[in-house]
Amino acid sequence: MARLHVPDRLLLGPGPSPVPDQVREAMAKPILGHMDPAFLAIVDDVQEKLRLVFGTQNRLTFPVSGTGSAGMEMSLVNFVEPGDTVVVVQQGIFGQRLADAAQRLGAHVAVISVPFGEICTTAQLEEVLDQHPDTRLVAVVKAETSTGVLQPLEGWSDAIHRRGALLLVDTVTALGGMPVDVDNQGFDVVFSGTQKCLAAPPGLAPMTVNERALARLQERREPVSSWYFDLPAIAQYLGKSRAYHHTAPISMMYALDRALSLIVEEGLDAVWDRHRRVAESLWAGLEAMGLQLMVPRAHRLSTVTTVRIPDGVDDRRVRQRLLEEHQIEIAGGLGPWAGKIWRIGVMGHGARLSNMMTLLVSLRTVLDAEGCHLPSGLSALEDTYRKVGQE
Amino acid sequence: MARLHVPDRLLLGPGPSPVPDQVREAMAKPILGHMDPAFLAIVDDVQEKLRLVFGTQNRLTFPVSGTGSAGMEMSLVNFVEPGDTVVVVQQGIFGQRLADAAQRLGAHVAVISVPFGEICTTAQLEEVLDQHPDTRLVAVVKAETSTGVLQPLEGWSDAIHRRGALLLVDTVTALGGMPVDVDNQGFDVVFSGTQKCLAAPPGLAPMTVNERALARLQERREPVSSWYFDLPAIAQYLGKSRAYHHTAPISMMYALDRALSLIVEEGLDAVWDRHRRVAESLWAGLEAMGLQLMVPRAHRLSTVTTVRIPDGVDDRRVRQRLLEEHQIEIAGGLGPWAGKIWRIGVMGHGARLSNMMTLLVSLRTVLDAEGCHLPSGLSALEDTYRKVGQE
Repeated sequence: MARLHVPDRLLLGPGPSPVPDQVREAMAKPILGHMDPAFLAIVDDVQEKLRLVFGTQNRLTFPVSGTGSAGMEMSLVNFVEPGDTVVVVQQGIFGQRLADAAQRLGAHVAVISVPFGEICTTAQLEEVLDQHPDTRLVAVVKAETSTGVLQPLEGWSDAIHRRGALLLVDTVTALGGMPVDVDNQGFDVVFSGTQKCLAAPPGLAPMTVNERALARLQERREPVSSWYFDLPAIAQYLGKSRAYHHTAPISMMYALDRALSLIVEEGLDAVWDRHRRVAESLWAGLEAMGLQLMVPRAHRLSTVTTVRIPDGVDDRRVRQRLLEEHQIEIAGGLGPWAGKIWRIGVMGHGARLSNMMTLLVSLRTVLDAEGCHLPSGLSALEDTYRKVGQE
Repeated sequence: MARLHVPDRLLLGPGPSPVPDQVREAMAKPILGHMDPAFLAIVDDVQEKLRLVFGTQNRLTFPVSGTGSAGMEMSLVNFVEPGDTVVVVQQGIFGQRLADAAQRLGAHVAVISVPFGEICTTAQLEEVLDQHPDTRLVAVVKAETSTGVLQPLEGWSDAIHRRGALLLVDTVTALGGMPVDVDNQGFDVVFSGTQKCLAAPPGLAPMTVNERALARLQERREPVSSWYFDLPAIAQYLGKSRAYHHTAPISMMYALDRALSLIVEEGLDAVWDRHRRVAESLWAGLEAMGLQLMVPRAHRLSTVTTVRIPDGVDDRRVRQRLLEEHQIEIAGGLGPWAGKIWRIGVMGHGARLSNMMTLLVSLRTVLDAEGCHLPSGLSALEDTYRKVGQE
């Protein structure tokens, strides 16, 4: 039987991202019971800090007991009933996933399909909403991990609420890396993951639900089809009655608590700014190397950068060499972009200039070794970096 | 903002149980990507060790990404379709939960209701199966955490398979604490949790599915209604294609790997024997103190002991004093037994004679302080313990 072997990687893919020592050490603390007042105090504290990063006053703000996708499931299974009309914006794999999940729940799904790398305009949204006046819910990914596109959502909640529908937003690759601003933006149901910009391990899905959405829960025609994701029952555990529902992932809650504290200590604005600044440096570096970014600057996501693989370069070989020879993880493309792009994460604890420099030098070295000679040398890169780093 | 405060408790309730240092330290290791070959090797290793503790050769043996209840949800949502007839044995809260979850999925649920503290006989089962010849699935809890009853399941699979149904078994409070013997007993779908006798933190739900059940998956009339718990998709990630489904809870997997290694190193028989021996000692100690056990010896569960609260004793006050003054957690009763019993766990790393002695002495001290004077003194207890400990 093999002994647990965990090499030390630099995680610069689209998640999971590196987890700081303090957060990993928090996970090693002794287990508490899920009804222990000391644990309930931690749960309260996590909720309070989640409200800060989400930008919300929503009472029901908490981590779902599962990974990011569990947050998606929780969001849909509670707010979609069989026969409901649901509009899903599909600009990538995670939008497709929302549509798939809603369909499995028996919804009539109207898909707004946008080519990979592009955004959905408010006009497109309104057109589809006009075609489907009975829409109950609009689901959209704010930061598409598969394309590296940041979907603008200004004005969406007005357009959606005017028609009596709810706005569900996937913020998995946004939360902690940029303002999400739930209350000001009028998002009704929002989920995320811990393993991206929050710099905690995968295993919890932060979520927040406003009063408009809670009112919808009261109108349900049938009980929620999932026992595990039954929001009314979970709200009871989080509320005054503390009624037992399921055993929370105790150690994961310690990790999230610590990770959120680190963000609060650094300051939300400083954390967001760091993500943005490091992403800009990465872009400058990649372009200095002669590589081409997939998404125009106006809609480019800071937390996941998508870059075109140069002609004749073997996607898998390069990623394998980066991993084996340089201990760096980046990811390939998904769907129509499989084999065509790499995805580089600028997330959480990984969002540091030094990491980007390490990646660029290593990528350059591997590409050279693979016979792909790009115009700029490492020295040009270093100059660029020095310049950007000083800004 | 409060600092993460984690007091050191002796967890002797029905879960979570104490987690050994080595397991907690494993969780603090650096994060790996979910597609990293080093992580996939750990997943393979966990699967192999789970097969050992489950007593199965089932290829599809893995941890569900959620707590024990997520294992229940995964088991039901894949193997129950709307309109299916499902027989659920309900001898406690966790049987009720199975019935509730199956109903939410649109099943016609035939409940075999057994009073708290009793078992369901094979004759009772067969009678209900005869009344419902279209039964597709029978769901039963092997170790009822709410009552402390061990449900005998000998001969059940024959009776159930003869009628073309599947046998789903909840082994949350059994796995790791006693033989579960999946293949020999003919269980088709089995789930468990990590936070009981496996001595890992809550956050994963070990599960195993045999070929008979997998064949049933092929016959489904509709896709599984849950995206997150879609077994066919998860089987692809576990299989040769390694197709990405969702990001696994990486650190939890390290913990489970280490916890299973500790069990394998101690030896399965030795671990089971330790649980049994320590439970026997606890029972002897409680009875020496003049307390009354709820379940007759023949069906008494070794991993959770239920004990009657003496007349006039305040349930909550005693548990609160145990927690605050002695740092020991035990639990109260659920449902009809709320306020009437205490539940004491003999599980995993907590299943040690010294822990039981600590609990008994502390409980005795609190009961004395609460004015409940039981016949035997601490000295009698110590004698009993010395005797049992020597056996």
